[in-house]
Amino acid sequence: MRNIKLIIEYDGSRYSGWQRLKGADETIQGKLEGVLTQMVGSPIEVIGSGRTDAGVHARGQVANFHTKSDMSLKEIHKYMNYYLPQDIVVKEVKEVSEKFHSRYNVKSKKYVCYIWNHWIPSAFHRKYSYHLSEKLDIALMQEASEKLLGTHDFIGFSSVKKTNKSTTRTIKEITITKEGNMVIFSFIGDGFLYNMVRIIMGTLIEIGLKQKKVSYIDEILESKTRSIAGKTLSPQGLFLEEVYY
Amino acid sequence: MRNIKLIIEYDGSRYSGWQRLKGADETIQGKLEGVLTQMVGSPIEVIGSGRTDAGVHARGQVANFHTKSDMSLKEIHKYMNYYLPQDIVVKEVKEVSEKFHSRYNVKSKKYVCYIWNHWIPSAFHRKYSYHLSEKLDIALMQEASEKLLGTHDFIGFSSVKKTNKSTTRTIKEITITKEGNMVIFSFIGDGFLYNMVRIIMGTLIEIGLKQKKVSYIDEILESKTRSIAGKTLSPQGLFLEEVYY
Repeated sequence: MRNIKLIIEYDGSRYSGWQRLKGADETIQGKLEGVLTQMVGSPIEVIGSGRTDAGVHARGQVANFHTKSDMSLKEIHKYMNYYLPQDIVVKEVKEVSEKFHSRYNVKSKKYVCYIWNHWIPSAFHRKYSYHLSEKLDIALMQEASEKLLGTHDFIGFSSVKKTNKSTTRTIKEITITKEGNMVIFSFIGDGFLYNMVRIIMGTLIEIGLKQKKVSYIDEILESKTRSIAGKTLSPQGLFLEEVYY
Repeated sequence: MRNIKLIIEYDGSRYSGWQRLKGADETIQGKLEGVLTQMVGSPIEVIGSGRTDAGVHARGQVANFHTKSDMSLKEIHKYMNYYLPQDIVVKEVKEVSEKFHSRYNVKSKKYVCYIWNHWIPSAFHRKYSYHLSEKLDIALMQEASEKLLGTHDFIGFSSVKKTNKSTTRTIKEITITKEGNMVIFSFIGDGFLYNMVRIIMGTLIEIGLKQKKVSYIDEILESKTRSIAGKTLSPQGLFLEEVYY
């Protein structure tokens, strides 16, 4: 069996997220599997690097699938982009070793989140950023973000219910920059819990608006309690940027 | 009467263009007039710098309206952005002399057109660029564009029917640059005839694809015949960027 790795870009606006759902085929995984199954004539399962929530976008989602098809990589690539909806684009198609697994082999992931920070909204960025009128204090958020670096139990920053699995993760890098009216947050970590980036965002925003102090981060990390952290930011500003193996 | 000047940004994707139509209120002018009429409680007419076609976007459309309202400029600005659909945004509100007229006083306009020039499409640029897989020759298009500079009868590059009005216009500047996969065309002129930018684009593309020679431009200018020029490019890559007074 050949093992084919895909790098995929998608505008998540109209999808229920990555993961195929019973009954609802408006998912990215569902669309990819539909096109590949039609292409090879037998059911194909697409393995993703991980889920993205409803409304979250991706510039570099990674997935793989197995097939006996002898189509060339270029043929597969062209076929997929021809039959996929225009808001899902396959950027790369590569043949990889049979052992490669998009989810198990992830070393780290990069998420980027955009906040349009001006009282006048943007007609063009509205679907790809979160609009916030009140001015964010970048320096305060940078100071707070440093407290998140390294290895912590991030359960307080997640929507994970009781679980036996580890909720400890390592965040390797956080950058917060401003370009014009856009504040750009970037997170690299070995993995992110359910809703973790969006809850970190909600929390950093409260600090950036001076509704909470920088030490708010310590409180959430120490208490390990979701209810004291910030709100889950709405999804449209969030992009799965890259997956590293 | 106060005379209020607006700078407006809009995503034209779902509109029938700038101009209010009888029966169809999915126009930019119609939306603006609807909100302003509701704001002041009596009918308001909005004068635009000119029409944009269905599907064309704007970053700097200019319009003005007259009112006796004593609302502050900030109040007007906030009211408009609150009640307008999210794909229409008022960027600036200014009080101007009673003589100012958005259409009559135009000195020149700048249009920008985006071509996504790669065989792999883009999920995020699809609504704001024209996708062309075959590689464009930038230098050839630049050479051809120089022939368009200056004052010419552009009737061959327009969808204007028989008219008594002048179809002579002056193009002051054309630039063609490439950033990544995006080819960016910019046009500054004292005015543009109906569909003129889109027909120039269709013509430059034929030259960039080497289907026509650079001298094709001379033929169209000399013949003054629409039917020999290139196709009217579809609208989604075109932006009214700025209006100069």
